[in-house]
Amino acid sequence: MSPAVTPIQTEIHAQMQDTGRRARAAARIMATAETRSKNQALQEIAHRLLSGQEALLIANARDLKAGAENSLAAALIDRLELNRARIQAMADGMHEVAALADPVGAITDLSFRPSGIQVGRMRVPLGVVGIIYESRPNVTADAAALCLKSGNASILRGGSEALHSNLAIAACMRAGLQAAKLPEHAVQIIETADRAAVGALLSMPEYVDVIVPRGGKGLIERVSREARMPVIKHLDGICHVYVDDRADLDQAVAIAFNAKTQRYGTCNTMECLLVAADVARPVLDRLVPMYLGKGVEIRGCEKSRAMFAAIKPATEQDYHTEYLAPILSLRIVSGLDEAIDHIEHYGSRHTDSIVTGDLIRARRFLREVDSSSVMVNASTRFADGFEYGLGAEVGISTDKFHARGPVGLEGLTSQKWIVLGDGHIRQP
Amino acid sequence: MSPAVTPIQTEIHAQMQDTGRRARAAARIMATAETRSKNQALQEIAHRLLSGQEALLIANARDLKAGAENSLAAALIDRLELNRARIQAMADGMHEVAALADPVGAITDLSFRPSGIQVGRMRVPLGVVGIIYESRPNVTADAAALCLKSGNASILRGGSEALHSNLAIAACMRAGLQAAKLPEHAVQIIETADRAAVGALLSMPEYVDVIVPRGGKGLIERVSREARMPVIKHLDGICHVYVDDRADLDQAVAIAFNAKTQRYGTCNTMECLLVAADVARPVLDRLVPMYLGKGVEIRGCEKSRAMFAAIKPATEQDYHTEYLAPILSLRIVSGLDEAIDHIEHYGSRHTDSIVTGDLIRARRFLREVDSSSVMVNASTRFADGFEYGLGAEVGISTDKFHARGPVGLEGLTSQKWIVLGDGHIRQP
Repeated sequence: MSPAVTPIQTEIHAQMQDTGRRARAAARIMATAETRSKNQALQEIAHRLLSGQEALLIANARDLKAGAENSLAAALIDRLELNRARIQAMADGMHEVAALADPVGAITDLSFRPSGIQVGRMRVPLGVVGIIYESRPNVTADAAALCLKSGNASILRGGSEALHSNLAIAACMRAGLQAAKLPEHAVQIIETADRAAVGALLSMPEYVDVIVPRGGKGLIERVSREARMPVIKHLDGICHVYVDDRADLDQAVAIAFNAKTQRYGTCNTMECLLVAADVARPVLDRLVPMYLGKGVEIRGCEKSRAMFAAIKPATEQDYHTEYLAPILSLRIVSGLDEAIDHIEHYGSRHTDSIVTGDLIRARRFLREVDSSSVMVNASTRFADGFEYGLGAEVGISTDKFHARGPVGLEGLTSQKWIVLGDGHIRQP
Repeated sequence: MSPAVTPIQTEIHAQMQDTGRRARAAARIMATAETRSKNQALQEIAHRLLSGQEALLIANARDLKAGAENSLAAALIDRLELNRARIQAMADGMHEVAALADPVGAITDLSFRPSGIQVGRMRVPLGVVGIIYESRPNVTADAAALCLKSGNASILRGGSEALHSNLAIAACMRAGLQAAKLPEHAVQIIETADRAAVGALLSMPEYVDVIVPRGGKGLIERVSREARMPVIKHLDGICHVYVDDRADLDQAVAIAFNAKTQRYGTCNTMECLLVAADVARPVLDRLVPMYLGKGVEIRGCEKSRAMFAAIKPATEQDYHTEYLAPILSLRIVSGLDEAIDHIEHYGSRHTDSIVTGDLIRARRFLREVDSSSVMVNASTRFADGFEYGLGAEVGISTDKFHARGPVGLEGLTSQKWIVLGDGHIRQP
């Protein structure tokens, strides 16, 4: 809490403490809940999302109306909107998570030690997961489902503009949990729109084991700064494709085009194309018109501008920028070393890909590029939980600690050591 | 830095920034260093520790003399002291770490996805590891060896009372790294005794990826509070043994005695014994005289005091205390449920053990007790890196995030995703 504490902040703090206590109690039960019960809860929730969709649409209409009155940007309104297709997708998501293998309780590496004890590890939930996100109500359902299946309790804080939608979704969750005889507080939504609630949430390490912020950079920076517990976070996605001079040029063109244009606003979209000097002419002869034809603005180095008048000059700042827009940075490099150095200096350790037919260079790129996803001959757009087989993701981590890259069920768990003996004692 | 910044603090801050930059540069090279080179460095360091032991002993004598002048406690003087046996043990430690499998670069779970891409994970170093510890110079060698083998650069900050010893050890490290043609700054010791250096170290997330504090509670709390990067930490070790009424009583007595008395000052020593009411009389009839004969003070619940006049009353605070001394808390409980509740409420999630011959209860204890090590029919004293086969440990984590329990080579690494394709692009 800030130095000047108002009565309302004190009240919110007390409410959040209650929320935390309930979550901790629910987490203890969820940690040992049977897979069958957790799956049943997910199916019951899916059923209620569909059977209760009129209520969801009415709640959502309230949010949309308020959004329009508050002149919310069109893109935000779009994210906020629920419709029958989106509700169906949320329900499908529940069934998909139910179909995933339960990571909790899995025992690995159990083996005998010279002392005679048997030592192994058992996968366990993290405990209470706090998720702070903006706009999209479907995040409520997706994130809660992953936490539920991985045996965690969750505390969700969505954008205030989606509050009614989120509360309606939460009601389905609560009913689904109760139908499966699991604690209803295993999923809780923060019901106040007051920003002080976020501050209170971030100050309760005794009740919240990890925080996952999902949203704009401002949110993530605030959470990283204030959180007194670990944060699974995703900062920039400044992703690169490096076209090596031993690339198959058809593959190179297809990957570089797909990585930039398949979707502009996602974190795994390529923001900077690096091309080896020896193949710059044939590669760019094909790619530049394709990008321009698609409406992509290209900002390139001097060498590239000498080849194509349509390329605008790139500033130093451009190479540090995640555009999330139809703009592309371009640099012609001498070869692999310069490409790796560029990625090391300007990249955000999210996702980087090399296009090459050369095995030695592919092996070097895989080893030396220190990003959460490193690819060979594939589009950066593949970097997500569904494509990786995690079923869904609670977020993509650009940190190295704990979870890296897409965070699914396993990223929401930890491992404890287990030791089995027959009366073993330690000798001096 | 604190609001009032002195010129000396500014200078120390600048020095630490330089240290950080050098560590980051060294880490990039260490991340892809060959196993052979890393092992060679460890062997060269071992060689230099032994051949240079006269210099080590002279440096250590300076620290011991200053310690005596400053009236350092006898226990601290003992920790501080190097002798031929301890130097030999440090050198042996280098060879042991060299003999461990190199975790870096290991690829796991590589499999094809429906899209045709191949997805797997590669184990990679964390980067730069900061280690802050007190007294024992051998920690310098052990911790640096683990960081080196796991491909990390390390920045070590030992207690000021061991500065000359640590610098002498660091000189061996530097020479060993150079002999193996690895960057000498892969291991750096902070050479100033000024406490501001710790503050500076904790404020550089751009150069330090993780901090491991090893020492007293005050140090760990300060580091946890100030660090702007993740912390692998160990708080209390309030470890329990629960003797179930279906225990083999010989095993129960042996384990309960060993867990308390094999060593008093270690974090995995039992601090509280829980005994099922139905076997309290036969178990305690044997154990109480054994403990008293060994000089262990027993502080117990009312029920236990009604049985044995020699048991002193335990306060609520006793059950929350890590004695690290010949004192034992004792509680007679009704059975497994009460034992698990007690551990949940009073424990520190370090190491807890059940003694039972009952399979169902053993399975419940393993699942429901949320500690970094959970044991069946074994002494809590087994909870350490050597006993678990990690070779050595940089610390024991009581956190759930990232590493839990003894942290060895694997705990100093992370995993990145790798994706292999043949020109694969993502379809809409």
